[in-house]
Order: sequence, then structure tokens, then C-alpha cells
Amino acid sequence: MKIALAQLNYTIGDFEHNKQKIVACIDEAKKQSVQLVVFSEQAISGAPAYDLLNKVSFLNLCEETLQEIATHCEGISVLIGLPVQGANKTISVAALIENGRIKRYVGKQTILSRDEMCYISPSKGCEYIKIAGKKIAVVVGEDIRTEQQYGEYTDIIVNLCNSTYSRGIVEKRYDFYRQLAFMTGKPIVYVNNVGGQTDVICDGSSAFINSRGEAIALLKSFEEDFQIVDCDADNEPIKFPKQNKTVNVFKAIRLGLKDYFSKNGFKKACLGLSGGIDSAVVLSMAVEALGPENVRVLLMPSQFSSDHSVEDARTLAENLGVEYQIVPINETFAALTTTLGPVFGELPFDVAEENMQSRIRGMMMMAISNKFGNVLLSTANKSEIATGYGTLYGDMVGALSIIGDLYKSEVYDLARYINRDKEIIPINTIIKAPSAELRLEQKDSDSLPPYDILDAILYRMIEEGQSREEIINAGFDEEEVYRVYNMVLTSEFKRYQYCPTLRLSTCTLGINRHLPLTNKYGY
Amino acid sequence: MKIALAQLNYTIGDFEHNKQKIVACIDEAKKQSVQLVVFSEQAISGAPAYDLLNKVSFLNLCEETLQEIATHCEGISVLIGLPVQGANKTISVAALIENGRIKRYVGKQTILSRDEMCYISPSKGCEYIKIAGKKIAVVVGEDIRTEQQYGEYTDIIVNLCNSTYSRGIVEKRYDFYRQLAFMTGKPIVYVNNVGGQTDVICDGSSAFINSRGEAIALLKSFEEDFQIVDCDADNEPIKFPKQNKTVNVFKAIRLGLKDYFSKNGFKKACLGLSGGIDSAVVLSMAVEALGPENVRVLLMPSQFSSDHSVEDARTLAENLGVEYQIVPINETFAALTTTLGPVFGELPFDVAEENMQSRIRGMMMMAISNKFGNVLLSTANKSEIATGYGTLYGDMVGALSIIGDLYKSEVYDLARYINRDKEIIPINTIIKAPSAELRLEQKDSDSLPPYDILDAILYRMIEEGQSREEIINAGFDEEEVYRVYNMVLTSEFKRYQYCPTLRLSTCTLGINRHLPLTNKYGY
Repeated sequence: MKIALAQLNYTIGDFEHNKQKIVACIDEAKKQSVQLVVFSEQAISGAPAYDLLNKVSFLNLCEETLQEIATHCEGISVLIGLPVQGANKTISVAALIENGRIKRYVGKQTILSRDEMCYISPSKGCEYIKIAGKKIAVVVGEDIRTEQQYGEYTDIIVNLCNSTYSRGIVEKRYDFYRQLAFMTGKPIVYVNNVGGQTDVICDGSSAFINSRGEAIALLKSFEEDFQIVDCDADNEPIKFPKQNKTVNVFKAIRLGLKDYFSKNGFKKACLGLSGGIDSAVVLSMAVEALGPENVRVLLMPSQFSSDHSVEDARTLAENLGVEYQIVPINETFAALTTTLGPVFGELPFDVAEENMQSRIRGMMMMAISNKFGNVLLSTANKSEIATGYGTLYGDMVGALSIIGDLYKSEVYDLARYINRDKEIIPINTIIKAPSAELRLEQKDSDSLPPYDILDAILYRMIEEGQSREEIINAGFDEEEVYRVYNMVLTSEFKRYQYCPTLRLSTCTLGINRHLPLTNKYGY
Repeated sequence: MKIALAQLNYTIGDFEHNKQKIVACIDEAKKQSVQLVVFSEQAISGAPAYDLLNKVSFLNLCEETLQEIATHCEGISVLIGLPVQGANKTISVAALIENGRIKRYVGKQTILSRDEMCYISPSKGCEYIKIAGKKIAVVVGEDIRTEQQYGEYTDIIVNLCNSTYSRGIVEKRYDFYRQLAFMTGKPIVYVNNVGGQTDVICDGSSAFINSRGEAIALLKSFEEDFQIVDCDADNEPIKFPKQNKTVNVFKAIRLGLKDYFSKNGFKKACLGLSGGIDSAVVLSMAVEALGPENVRVLLMPSQFSSDHSVEDARTLAENLGVEYQIVPINETFAALTTTLGPVFGELPFDVAEENMQSRIRGMMMMAISNKFGNVLLSTANKSEIATGYGTLYGDMVGALSIIGDLYKSEVYDLARYINRDKEIIPINTIIKAPSAELRLEQKDSDSLPPYDILDAILYRMIEEGQSREEIINAGFDEEEVYRVYNMVLTSEFKRYQYCPTLRLSTCTLGINRHLPLTNKYGY
């Protein structure tokens, strides 16, 4: 039997567009005498669709599109995912189309993703179908993780999934499916979505694994792909490609950024360039995803900016061939402080004035965004967002955060990867001590622990959920642990108002980590 | 049998504080020979606790606190709500304490609130206990809405709940319980939480309803209360008080604002006063909740501000006895436009410059907030937030939105109520045509439909989920409906970054209404 794996990049709610892609694959499969084409979970709608999953008109369009797809399925079988109205709430199903007719739905039982919990309700789970004489176990989404018993006469397990990217997931997912194939002694086909949906990125990486846990087909990561496997043939196993976390993060950000722009009809981006590592990496990624002609930057030095900052920023813009302008903030800052003089009286320079500088820059970037229609990219990193080191409405402004799920040390890893062939990001940007440059001689290390220690504490706190005591027992300084914990807790209100952040881990700060702002417990 | 109803205002995660309140009620009940004290759902933890409900250490503290409470329960029975670890996930239970010992847990089965769906899993539901010879059906939360069959020998139904305020809920809830008591022929006791938790407000309004659907005890709305009922006595029915929606909104905002400040340890608020209706209502409510000595305002006129705006703002501040300062934005605006001149070139004045003015004001307010530690209140209303008429990082700045769930017409209702005894808000503020005053002679009606029409369309779209076609069929202008729909859809990104909004309806915009930003479907 020939099975086709169709790993496509869908747009949420763009039924016509999604249908055309799907039908093109079915047509190609028919040409190549394929018996079964497998698409991913919620392919017809795109995912995650959130509140749209509660709208009857949205679900109706999903089923109408399925009907239209079915008319293209003469002489072929198709398994394709979509959300449909269940008894009470919406369910996620794999529809089986045979010879132009919709034969049945196989529902999903296990709802693990917070993106779905409020919308999708559990359905029956794994069911068996017969195609070309083979008994196929059809499994939707995370049911593959709970359903471990398959009938003795099962020939193939087919899993339609929507597995989002997070650091290290590609290799972990390969391992999971290999082990499952080996343990059950059944070949497994799984087809994943690929592409960015606002902050969510699916990496694809679909595969056909034989009953010995070897790969027979491996679809691309971070790209669309379509492959056909003759599962009765004597297929030569393929080596699983070695994964590099930084390379995958690079590809994930590029895909997420590209799709955010193309799917929303945006073309041009803008950002503020400080000479520091964060904006350097964001600019490099923007140029990578959108092209230098679609990115513009402002350099906004103040009296506290060092010469090398402006120089480094300028060099980077020139290395990348990006339009830049230098717009000092001094005059606006002076006007603002003069105006507020009678209100502030004799009070000394403090965080208010530091933040004013950051907010003038935010305001200038938004003016560029409004005037020229450029979408502003946030340059904040995860260490900064976690500790509240960024200024709300200042350097935290932006429509999309592309490195907001990377700790500072991971931002450096990415910078070194960007420079893999030649020096794009000036080496000085990478080696100098980080500084917000909002007052004289300021260094990040004045108010934060060194980044290697900070990141290690944050990682234990956020990704591993460790308590203060556990982190201290692991050898970290007690005072520093308490200070970091406290910074994270008291800055929750800033994250509440932060823009969508491309998810590169399982613990992205923001909308998917929800602490009550009124909370005496801490975390 | 004497039953006490304890309707208290808890703080999330403040176990010691919550315990003290609870124990004080138990002590008082013992003095008065009460047999059973009923507390609300999740009383020990406070609700909604979101991610904290997944933390083992948090749940452990809940159970430890319950143990400590039990030591105060010699000679008395107590029903009290808390979250505990269930088989897989956290469940919400009523704990029964009898004579100093924790006897059992009755779990909740029905999870309807989006605040709980990702955290609380369904448990067994309604169970029966016997106290002082009476058979009591114990029902937690929304199970009261699904459990309609009670055993023949049931003497009383007791419902521990956490029912949040929304416009009109108080009267609807009374009706629901009256009808349920009448239909089942059983008396019902229900005890609700009271108080604000960030954006969520519980109004209390607990009651003891007899089997004829008459009230025997009615606890206060928007305040703590403690009442004792002897259910064997011949209790005179009490009249259900007439509810006024605007009065309840007034009380809800006052409570939500007060608790946001007191529970977070904040004292002073600040806001920008424009002379318009929105900031006038926000200031009046802030003074009502926090006192005039704890609120400071800035008047930030521009070249486009009319004289009457400044005058109206000044009059209001003086009427309320609030400290105000006048800080024109002209100089900062001039400096900013001069600096950006080389970037903007010959491009005409447009939305970029309009937003710049709004953002300078936002920046000035944040400077006040940073310098003096005042918490900034947002002055945006629901009509504005829905249509995206506000400026992101401009007039949308703030830590808490207190009228963000009121349509413009409801803001006027509230203004009239604030003026019920004397003219606090200048009448001119109420009668003049609304204007953002960001360019010459600007009126809101230049870019928005008249507010009565706009609000009617928005209400049908947002609160009632009507489609464009349904709204047009109800007699609204097709072009206007499409325009409003489009404004709402294209401004989703602004709401994503908006601050917490006191919830006064079942469809508060913001975190609880989640559309994918990348979305070709619309809504």
C-alpha cells in the first residue's frame, strides 16, 4: 500500500487557501497511485483557533470545506483533521474520506494543551479502519501518548497531530515514536502541522517509522513537505538527522516571523537598534526572514549612550544592508523633564527618568510604525522579561516578540550562530558587558546577578518549577535566589501587557503562564 | 438547627489572613450555639488562583490551613471550600469538619468557568451528609445548576459557591435559587465569596431560601456579612431588594478598585484628566474607593485642547478635592516632531502625530507613577477598547482598567449616578460631544458611528455573538455594521496588550476573549 504524508502550512480560518493546498496534494497522490493520504490534526481550520472553535459558523465552514475536499477524492482514501461540533462541545477529529464520501470521524480523547482545554472536549479516541486490506489504528493528537494497547492484527498506526515546537522537541519526538513503534511492534505514520500561528510554531518533522523503530521516511523540519511511502516495499532505513538546538531555534524564529508577517498581510518591520546583543539578534533574524529591504531601524542614542554602541549599531545595519537613521532622544527628554520639572520638584534622578528615556524610544518606534506601516518587533529577551528588567511601554513595546522565549545566554548562542560564516553582528556587541545605558556607566550587572547565574536560577524556577529551597540546595546563593524570585513575582504585571512571544520552550512567559496579580503566595 | 452563613473577602494565597477571618466566624458561631457554619467555595485559598492550583506546595498549604482551622471546631460542624489534589489534577471540594476533625470532601463535577477549565478537573459532585439529625445535600459551585434531583429525605441543600459579578447577575441569581427551592421543595443555603481579585469581583449576595422560594436571610451585596438562621424556627420571609444595575456597577467598581489596592499593598492612584466623561468617571470612582488624598491627576492639554476641557477637568478635581497639576504636552510634542523631522520628511500630519500626543500623555503619567509610586488607572471604556479607538501605549496605558467593561452609554449612566446628589462631574462634561482632541475640531463621531448606534451594534456582536447578517437584519445600516465589525477584528492586537479590566459583564474584552491574531476568518 502506498501512503502519502502531507505536511502543510495552514492559515487559521483561511478555508479556501487551506483547501487548495490539500486538494493539490490529493491530486498529486492520485497521480502516483497512492491509496491513503494522511494530513495533520485540524488541518482544515488551522490551529489553535481558540474562541473560533466555539462559533457554530466557523465549525460549519470546517465541515463544508471537508465536503468540498471529498469531491476530489474519487478512488483514494484520505485521513484529515478538523474540529467539529460534538454532543456538548467542540471535538477534534480525523475524518475518513473514501472514494469521494465522508465515511466517519475518529475523535480525540486526550486534551493536554492549554490552548485547547477551554475549547475542545474529550471524545472517544483511537478507532480502527480498513484500507486496501490493512487494519489501521487512527489516533488523533496526544491520544498517541495515552493509547498504548493496539489490537493484535493492527497493521499500521496513523497519528494526525499538531505538535508545537519547543527547544529539544524534535529529537524527543523522534525518540518517542521510535520507542512506541518498537514496543508495539507496529509501524507508525505521523503527520504534523508546520508553520507559525501568531506565537505558536509547528515544526513539522513528520515521519514513517517501521516496526523496528527505524525511519522509512522523514519529512522536513520547519518546511512544508510531501512524501509517499510504499509500506509493502523493502524500505531502506534512513538515519535520524542530528539535531542542533540553536540551529532549530534559528529556523523556528525565522518561520514564526515569516508566517506572522505573510499570514497577516504585513510586509515591513521596524525596530530600535541599541548596539547591544538583543536588538542585533532581532535585526539579523528579521533580515533573514523578511529581507533587508523590508526592515528599517532607528538608532536612538542619548547622553548616556557610549560611542561604541552607536558604532556597533551602525556597523550591523551596514553589514545587513538595512536602512537606518540616527535620531537622538536628548531634545525630547529635555523638553519632557522641563515640563515635568514643576511636578517633580527637587526629587533626584531615579528610575522615573531612566524609564522616560526608554519610553521616548518606544514612542519614536511607534511613530515610525504608524507613519510608515512597519510592524514593530520587540527586542526583549526572556531573562529580562522574567525579572522585569524591561520598561513597560518602553523597550517592551512591539507587536511581536521573537526572542522573548530565549534566556540571555541563548541569545548569545544565536548570535554566534548568525555569525557562523562571517561577522554580521560586530564582535564587540557580543563580547562587551550588557548595559541598558539609561544612566552614567550603567551595567546590567549593577542590578542583576551575572547572566550565567541569573539564567541558571531562572531556568530552575520557570522551566523546572523548583522552589527557592531547591535552588539554594543546588548550591546557589540564598540572597540571590530570593532576589531573583522576588523580581519575577513583582513583575508579573509587566508580562500581562507584553506582546505575543514566539514560543520556543514549554514555559513561555505571557499568556500561557497565568498567575493572579493579586496573590500573597508568590510562586 | 442553627446554620451560620459566612460571606467573607479572602486574599488569594494569604492563608494566615484567610484563616484568621474564618476562625473568627467559627468562634462567633460557637458562642451563638450554631450547629453548622457554611463558608464559600475555595475560601481557604481565595479564587481564581490560576497556575497556583497546579503547584503542590500551594495545595499542601491549603490542606495544612484546613487542619489548623479544624482545631478550632470543637463542638461545631463546618463546611468550607478549598482546592485539593485529586487523582490526576486539582479538584475543588467542600470539606466537612465535625467536632474538630476533617470528615470528608465533597467534590465539584461541573467546570464551567474559563478561569478554572485549565486547572480544576471534574470530581464526583453532590453528596449527602447528616448534621443534627438533618440530611444535607452538599453541592459545590456550578453543580447546583446541573444537579436537579435531590433525594426524597433531603432536608436542606447547601451550596458553596464562587459566583462572580456581572451586570444583572444579582437578580438573576436570586431568581435561579428561588426557582430551584420552589421546584425541589427544599430550602437552599448558598454562600458566595465577596471581594475583588485583580479583575474578578464576587458580589456575595448569599442567601437562605425556604422551600417556598422565599428569602429567610439575605446577606449583603459587595460587602462581607455573617448571619445565623435557625431553620427550625418560623422565619418571616424577607423581601428581595430591588436591584439597580447602575448602582450595582458603582458598588462593584468601588469594591474591585479598593481590593486591588489594599490586597496588593498599593495606596495611591494617579490618572490623566482630559475634561471628558471617561476620565471624569474614573477619577470619581477612584476618590470614592481610595479617598481624595490618595489620588493625583495631571491635566495635559495640547494645542488642540479646548478651553472648556481644561476648565471642566479643573472644576472636577476641585469638586473632589484632588491634587492636580497642569502639564502641557506642546513642548515635548514639538521636540519629538523636530527630532523625527528628518525621518518623516514632507509626509502630512496623520495618525502618527495623533498617537504621539496620546503617547506623550501616557509617558507623563507613567513618569508620575514611577516617581511617586502612584498606580496608574486606565480611563478607556469598552466601546473604545472594542473598536480600537484608543492608542496603544497612549491612552491605553495603566495598571488596572475600571470602566473597560462599560460601553460608553453605560459610562454616562454611571456619571449621572455619581451626580445623584450634587454636581460632582461638571454637567458640561456629560452633555458635550465626545472628542479625543488630537487634531483640530476632532469629534469621536468623525470616525465612529454615534455612540447609541455603535454600542447597540457592539452589544449584539460581543455580548450576544450575533453575526453581521443578524445585526443587519435587526435594522442596522449594513455599511456601519461591516465597519464596526472590522474595527473590532483589526484591533485585537491592542486588547492583547491591555491591562486587567474589572469584569462587569460575562464578555469582558481581554484575557478571557481569545481570538488568534493570525486569523483569516474574522469572528
